Amino acid sequence: MKIKPHDRARIVARLISPRSVAMIGASADFNKLNGRPLKHLIEKGYAGRVFPVNPKYKDIAGLACYPTIESLPEAADVAIVAVPAAEVIAAIEALGRRGVSAAVVYSSGFGETGAEGKALEARLVETAQRSGVLLCGPNCLGFVNAFDNLYATFSQYADGDVGAGPIAFVTQSGAFGTATAALIRQRGLGLGYFISTGNEADLAFSELMTAVVEDPRIRVAAGYLEGLDDGAALVRLALRCHELGKPLILTKVGRKASGQRAAASHTGALAVEDTVLDAVLRQYGMLRARNEEQMLDMLEALSQPRVAHGNGLGIATMSGGAGVMMADRADEVGLTVPELTSATRARIAEVMPAFGASANPVDVTGQFIANPALLRESVVAMMDDPNVHVGIVWLQLMAAHVEKLVGLFCEIRDRTTKPLFVCWTGAPAEAVRRLREEGITVFGAGERAVEAAAALVRAHADRARTLSRPLPAALPAAQLPAHVTYGVQASVQAADWLRAAGVPMASVSLARSADEAVAHWREACGPVALKIESPDITHKTEMGGVLLSLNSEMAIREGYRALMDGAARAMPAARIDGVIVQGMASGHVELVVGVQRSPVFGMVVMVGLGGILVEVLKDVVFRRAPFGVEEARDMLKELRATAILDGVRGKPGVDRGAVALMLSRLSQWAAGMEPLLAELDLNPVLVGPDSPIAVDCVMVLRN
Amino acid sequence: MKIKPHDRARIVARLISPRSVAMIGASADFNKLNGRPLKHLIEKGYAGRVFPVNPKYKDIAGLACYPTIESLPEAADVAIVAVPAAEVIAAIEALGRRGVSAAVVYSSGFGETGAEGKALEARLVETAQRSGVLLCGPNCLGFVNAFDNLYATFSQYADGDVGAGPIAFVTQSGAFGTATAALIRQRGLGLGYFISTGNEADLAFSELMTAVVEDPRIRVAAGYLEGLDDGAALVRLALRCHELGKPLILTKVGRKASGQRAAASHTGALAVEDTVLDAVLRQYGMLRARNEEQMLDMLEALSQPRVAHGNGLGIATMSGGAGVMMADRADEVGLTVPELTSATRARIAEVMPAFGASANPVDVTGQFIANPALLRESVVAMMDDPNVHVGIVWLQLMAAHVEKLVGLFCEIRDRTTKPLFVCWTGAPAEAVRRLREEGITVFGAGERAVEAAAALVRAHADRARTLSRPLPAALPAAQLPAHVTYGVQASVQAADWLRAAGVPMASVSLARSADEAVAHWREACGPVALKIESPDITHKTEMGGVLLSLNSEMAIREGYRALMDGAARAMPAARIDGVIVQGMASGHVELVVGVQRSPVFGMVVMVGLGGILVEVLKDVVFRRAPFGVEEARDMLKELRATAILDGVRGKPGVDRGAVALMLSRLSQWAAGMEPLLAELDLNPVLVGPDSPIAVDCVMVLRN
Repeated sequence: MKIKPHDRARIVARLISPRSVAMIGASADFNKLNGRPLKHLIEKGYAGRVFPVNPKYKDIAGLACYPTIESLPEAADVAIVAVPAAEVIAAIEALGRRGVSAAVVYSSGFGETGAEGKALEARLVETAQRSGVLLCGPNCLGFVNAFDNLYATFSQYADGDVGAGPIAFVTQSGAFGTATAALIRQRGLGLGYFISTGNEADLAFSELMTAVVEDPRIRVAAGYLEGLDDGAALVRLALRCHELGKPLILTKVGRKASGQRAAASHTGALAVEDTVLDAVLRQYGMLRARNEEQMLDMLEALSQPRVAHGNGLGIATMSGGAGVMMADRADEVGLTVPELTSATRARIAEVMPAFGASANPVDVTGQFIANPALLRESVVAMMDDPNVHVGIVWLQLMAAHVEKLVGLFCEIRDRTTKPLFVCWTGAPAEAVRRLREEGITVFGAGERAVEAAAALVRAHADRARTLSRPLPAALPAAQLPAHVTYGVQASVQAADWLRAAGVPMASVSLARSADEAVAHWREACGPVALKIESPDITHKTEMGGVLLSLNSEMAIREGYRALMDGAARAMPAARIDGVIVQGMASGHVELVVGVQRSPVFGMVVMVGLGGILVEVLKDVVFRRAPFGVEEARDMLKELRATAILDGVRGKPGVDRGAVALMLSRLSQWAAGMEPLLAELDLNPVLVGPDSPIAVDCVMVLRN
Repeated sequence: MKIKPHDRARIVARLISPRSVAMIGASADFNKLNGRPLKHLIEKGYAGRVFPVNPKYKDIAGLACYPTIESLPEAADVAIVAVPAAEVIAAIEALGRRGVSAAVVYSSGFGETGAEGKALEARLVETAQRSGVLLCGPNCLGFVNAFDNLYATFSQYADGDVGAGPIAFVTQSGAFGTATAALIRQRGLGLGYFISTGNEADLAFSELMTAVVEDPRIRVAAGYLEGLDDGAALVRLALRCHELGKPLILTKVGRKASGQRAAASHTGALAVEDTVLDAVLRQYGMLRARNEEQMLDMLEALSQPRVAHGNGLGIATMSGGAGVMMADRADEVGLTVPELTSATRARIAEVMPAFGASANPVDVTGQFIANPALLRESVVAMMDDPNVHVGIVWLQLMAAHVEKLVGLFCEIRDRTTKPLFVCWTGAPAEAVRRLREEGITVFGAGERAVEAAAALVRAHADRARTLSRPLPAALPAAQLPAHVTYGVQASVQAADWLRAAGVPMASVSLARSADEAVAHWREACGPVALKIESPDITHKTEMGGVLLSLNSEMAIREGYRALMDGAARAMPAARIDGVIVQGMASGHVELVVGVQRSPVFGMVVMVGLGGILVEVLKDVVFRRAPFGVEEARDMLKELRATAILDGVRGKPGVDRGAVALMLSRLSQWAAGMEPLLAELDLNPVLVGPDSPIAVDCVMVLRN
């Protein structure tokens, strides 16, 4: 009976749009947690079949009620389970026997309550798998499919007016998710799906969202996350969203130390290193909303159908000050506020009185009430400007002119194909309602309108970028020698593997005697560095295990002896393999490059600028492996001190392409090594006029 | 008739609270710009005398109307001038003759319209000064004194319900200010004063605000700025606000390049370098709101009477996720979310069911509806915790429980003296209205509540800090030599002045011959640097004008010749004074210290960390001169790379106190030199284990 992986998608698709619903533990008291969903199923117009199950009732509100799961008249597409925690496992077993493949478990008292609950949850999962039942929950609020009028939830959200729309919202938090869903409705934005994922014992955020985004009526996906286990599933979801052309907006809490403390006490999810998450969201073109208000603003912008084909923002305003503020913000969030072309300026000058400025922001002053053509024609001209890709019109109050203005905005909207937002500060409620009825996006504050426009611009740019950058393949994992030891790898071996993968490494040779060291020095034809080689010594410089720029036989012999003697004295227990002889590399920019293992996203490549920039300012950038050269170039651009790569203080710039190639190659290698690689440090990587070269390497393998 | 400076405050105080108002150019058409204010004066309950002036009418709405200013029955405390621009100057002259000391000029067509308007405005100012009339405006919307029911404005704000409150709001933008004022009212926050300052030809923001904050009914002051001319007046206002215990919140637009472009086209005000403004606001403890929404949130927090005596935030929430998000934000805005004491935890555990966490954030779950004591007792316990200084309770929706919850919050409020905010997401409108009636501060989004709490904490801390740090005096300006030349100063002279002011400077001697250079080297008793000395060469290193670490007679003689010959070849027109001989200084931290002249704030001292940090990352901090040592310590803390001062990469930390003392001394000297000093660069200042020492100095004086 166990569900095969390729059957899961089919069952989840059925779960979110079922033809029949069984409600296990249904109550006839519609004020109760296990009565309210039944009430919604009966009253909100769900057209499928509903089967309450409870031995206490013969029928509830005219619906036949079944005494047991066994007695259900058919294998419902989904069962809602709202029985006490202790009875859930038996219910799931019975559902499996009755042929029900999907269950949404409201019941709490599982992983969220501590060790005992966790053990119960593990047994629940094991039971569900054995019984062939997919689980949503436990400890969830249920779900809504508004297209089917299916409100299978006890969330307060379902108490309000219903109405379907282009937004899918999946939340790991019941209370916060309910509040967000209610705010979506308050804004007049339509919610097509609402899913509370609870403890995610089985079905988790990404799998559920992947199912709902396939619905063609969905235009934009939004998620609220507290923890994340399966980074790969999130990445697949993101890529599928791009294929479908549906932006994915995520709010993830637990950004900071104190927040993470609270998160740990609230969910059992592993804390995701937030900087890594942030980098991955950027990498795969997901939009991150820092809180529910920003999510709502993004949804406002992205649930309307128009796309912004560039980052030029046109601003028309009746207040110069508001224009300045919006232009400030545009600059901060990556939009341009382009000068208008002379043709556009001429068009605006035709209608604009002398005292309005016809630059961008276009100051239409307050005179447009007397002369509506002033606003209409100047905004249409601005929208027609080839450098403008999205427009915002700012106005305030005007309670006496609502109908006139709504009409104006409709005319303007119909005369452009570009997205246009109205920002109406202190708007009469009637104005907001009327504009939304007309399908016109409206905000109440200028900076928020600008941020939403930036999200619209980014959504399109992210999609184009992501679809145009095929993911490079992971390299096959390096062939491990028969005698491999896990832990720190020998320098020569590590360098060989990386070099074979296309990562430029300084040449290294192991000398087991002073004679061998001299021979290696002669081969190098120039000054060399000597480094003590030991799997037990990773911080060689700190323990005096590195000598630089030696260039005579005597220096090599003395150096060899000094390193071996020093190591024996300083770390008598360390296994000493000998001394590494390495040609001196040069470069005026020092990078720190590394590979780390994220528990959520797997192998992650890091790059930073060496020295105080990485140590004091933590100026590093991450990407999930593998990635291509263009992505690596973006990493370099994201460094705060990126200008250093272009040359400062009289030094020349470096070849960004060569550095990017190195990072991409490393990422391909790291992806292939995922089962084996624990961590890798290339520090420093020296970059001069030529290719970068890694001059020190610590590679740790795990079993 | 000219107004003496010390009379201005008295006249402005009268202006904002007049016993009588003359309305020059009053219209009987109450829909007109010059009719609406008269309507408000008549209808909103202003108890003073109102004198419309217009030869067209005998009376307006039962009020006697006067044909001319000359015929006014008394010298009104303030005159509103709403006549065409061309008639304003004559009106002001007439007002002066009639003994009216203050005029609020609505009329536009002045500085905001271009060169011609600017000339007209200059004549207006000259006329007003000659006539002994203080001006507010021109091109302003007027003002409101809600305590006196005086709505002397045609702003749309006055169209709504009136009602006085503890907020004073002064705005440079008419439209944006009106919108903000309307939003203040929408939130149920009371506005005591609203003043639109228009072009600020005479009375500007700070002078008007200084008058209104004296009103004991005002609790908090808010300003919207687009430009600023008189930084000293703003600083005086800030200090007065601290004396009065009234926080001052400012929104200033024009932060960025594109924004500044728009600002330049909108007002004639000089663009203030925004980083300097930002530093000055921090220095004198003003709160900066980045936009109108943040201003409103701060007003919400600061118009309630309770003070936060520390930065510990207690959070109680029915959603763990909301708690995490708020704790994240708290961390970002400088609040702590302290662990609760064991006593507090024990109190909470008494009432909290097993599944709520009793850490901070306190997760009260959704069960408190059934058991109100759960919420009440746990929140009261949290507020009683000695580490908690301000509290936030987060909840959502709960439409069915508004009265119960409002009652609960009132009980809690009465059982603590600390400030407590309710954050009610998706709140029923009734809940918000009822809480506001009860004087309970309520927000709709968690992060905004946290930001507002941070503003409350900062307001108190800023006040304590500002009042506890007496401003050091400016030093008397250096005695200029009789033969002073303006422009770049001689190194020896500059170093002498700064050394006399207590700024540690490397010893420098001018050599006019190789013999003199050798003599100076012998005096130095160690290696010296030679630097070409010329008022025409400020970038000495770049033109090869510096030689380091010379320590023999031959090296000195050769060096002298090389520098003199090199300078003659490279810059044949430069005036060469000779060569500076300077002892070699050492230090492992390199600072850049400078003094710049801000057109708004006068002398401003800058400090940054040398090298790429200042060049690439612009990691510098400013303060207005003069300032004390504690303020200078704060400057060092604000550097992003401040950790470098504590020692990194094996290097020791430096004496922050010695650096701070140097900065403070420099600031006292710079303040005294304000009339003379154009700019100063000390680059680098070397800091080692001992005192910092400036090893290069470029000082420019102006006439």
